[in-house]
Amino acid sequence: MNIDAIRAAADRAAGVVRRTPMLSSPRLDAIAGRRVLVKAESLQQTGSFKFRGGWAAVSALDPKTRRRGVLACSSGNHAQGVAMAARMHDAPAVIVMPADAPRSKIDGTRALGGEVVLYDRATEDRDAIAADLAHRRDLTLILPFDDPQVIAGQGTVGLEIAEEAGRDGRADVLVCCGGGGLASGVALALEAEAPGLRVRTVEPAGFDDVARSLSAGRIVRNGRLSGSRCDAILTPQPGALTFPILQRLCGPGMAVTDDEAMQAMALAFAHLKLVLEPGGAVALAAALFRPQSVTGDTVICVATGGNVDACAFTVALITHAD
Amino acid sequence: MNIDAIRAAADRAAGVVRRTPMLSSPRLDAIAGRRVLVKAESLQQTGSFKFRGGWAAVSALDPKTRRRGVLACSSGNHAQGVAMAARMHDAPAVIVMPADAPRSKIDGTRALGGEVVLYDRATEDRDAIAADLAHRRDLTLILPFDDPQVIAGQGTVGLEIAEEAGRDGRADVLVCCGGGGLASGVALALEAEAPGLRVRTVEPAGFDDVARSLSAGRIVRNGRLSGSRCDAILTPQPGALTFPILQRLCGPGMAVTDDEAMQAMALAFAHLKLVLEPGGAVALAAALFRPQSVTGDTVICVATGGNVDACAFTVALITHAD
Repeated sequence: MNIDAIRAAADRAAGVVRRTPMLSSPRLDAIAGRRVLVKAESLQQTGSFKFRGGWAAVSALDPKTRRRGVLACSSGNHAQGVAMAARMHDAPAVIVMPADAPRSKIDGTRALGGEVVLYDRATEDRDAIAADLAHRRDLTLILPFDDPQVIAGQGTVGLEIAEEAGRDGRADVLVCCGGGGLASGVALALEAEAPGLRVRTVEPAGFDDVARSLSAGRIVRNGRLSGSRCDAILTPQPGALTFPILQRLCGPGMAVTDDEAMQAMALAFAHLKLVLEPGGAVALAAALFRPQSVTGDTVICVATGGNVDACAFTVALITHAD
Repeated sequence: MNIDAIRAAADRAAGVVRRTPMLSSPRLDAIAGRRVLVKAESLQQTGSFKFRGGWAAVSALDPKTRRRGVLACSSGNHAQGVAMAARMHDAPAVIVMPADAPRSKIDGTRALGGEVVLYDRATEDRDAIAADLAHRRDLTLILPFDDPQVIAGQGTVGLEIAEEAGRDGRADVLVCCGGGGLASGVALALEAEAPGLRVRTVEPAGFDDVARSLSAGRIVRNGRLSGSRCDAILTPQPGALTFPILQRLCGPGMAVTDDEAMQAMALAFAHLKLVLEPGGAVALAAALFRPQSVTGDTVICVATGGNVDACAFTVALITHAD
């Protein structure tokens, strides 16, 4: 994995992947005690950065393989990213999703032409279902984070951040983190293009496998995989490809509570006019509510996604009205 | 008023005014039956396009005049645009607002350093209050739309739309319309830069003074000025400067109901991850629900603002859940 793969992904993404805006608000600066810049990947195609990785992976397949179709396992954002990338290549996409994924994500995946296969998290083995489907239907599995093309695609976020900040920019870059695909891609891009910017992973408290792995110097698993509103970023452990990159390039990992994530959603609504999902708001929450853990005059956060049901969004607004 | 003033405003705005993204979603295309492009001015500084006009007007003042301060009358978006532009010039701003303006707009104006003077719409004369303040405190009044610098500033939205669409683009450009400052500025910019793009004003049904004025060939007033959720775009009549421009350059005006505006808000939440206010959603509503009134394969809408209280936003989401 190196910067060349990220640059190649950016070339293939030109005119397809949106360049998302970097937003700010005086009120958020006041809360954080420093300038807060928010990279709004919620405005990416399919409502999350995952379209970047999906596009990078699908566009890198040879046409014959692609025509047979792709397969992904996902609670929703990777699902929609891969489904849309496949549709834009006229390739079939089969997506294995937990039956308890947010309704808007299941509907969104279907609306993008994805064939959704639901499974029960408690009683069924997702990987076995996926392996069987891939074998029977000759589909190419696109992993959510531990895949070089996917990491390269997510890394294009880092190229855009580096361009905005300039080569001499100095800041912590807070990234909402599940398996580490986005964080490792952004870290590689920044190492090459803006070495004064340092990635910090942000996870839900109690599901901070990456922070604990970074601190332990080896891969550590989460004790459980449900019980947070941040469905998009609950993963068992950092990836075999992503972890060494994170270990080499990132600062200490951070974690915030679900309540802080929801408060960040309400503040992003009020002051940035953004719709964020809980898992897409943890980096902003860390910038706002853990100022002592961040260094510098400016902090950059990636707001990774906005695929949230109206009901869950309303709960955040009502609970944390300004 | 001509394109040179708009280009000069764009030069003064460089690095301050945000270039807002143009967004789209397959689901909205399917509803409208054509490609729908949404220019997201809700993501502009202060949450609406009004910052463009405020910045253009404040930055055009000679420094001595500016230092004495500016004055604006507004239910909220022009208020915040002028307050922020003044603050960034270290100039005082006094804003005359109706006491029943949305709470988030009054708070937002104060948070930007604006001195808010409230009045009662039913019993007090706003213009008399403003004239008295301007005289006593030697402030420069910045009108919300009938001012050449304000029209020039709003016209910078049109320059960006023209750049995205290209010189040969052909489409209707739907613009949420109060007094016509944005619509006339955009129309002037498009006339010069993308003459195949035609502005169409969109207003709340029952408050469609611009549509009726265009149809009558002379300025016609609204019968009433309250009773719509679209507080941002309730104006008594088109402006003396804006109307001749609209008359020369725009197609027939359109109108949508409050319920359609709220439905557009819910769809923008679900499929674009945007927070829109009712008055900022009427152009999208017209694109989605009046397809037979629009021509061409593509329609462009300006989503003009997102300054909405959590409560009003929640009502739109709950009433129109997908």
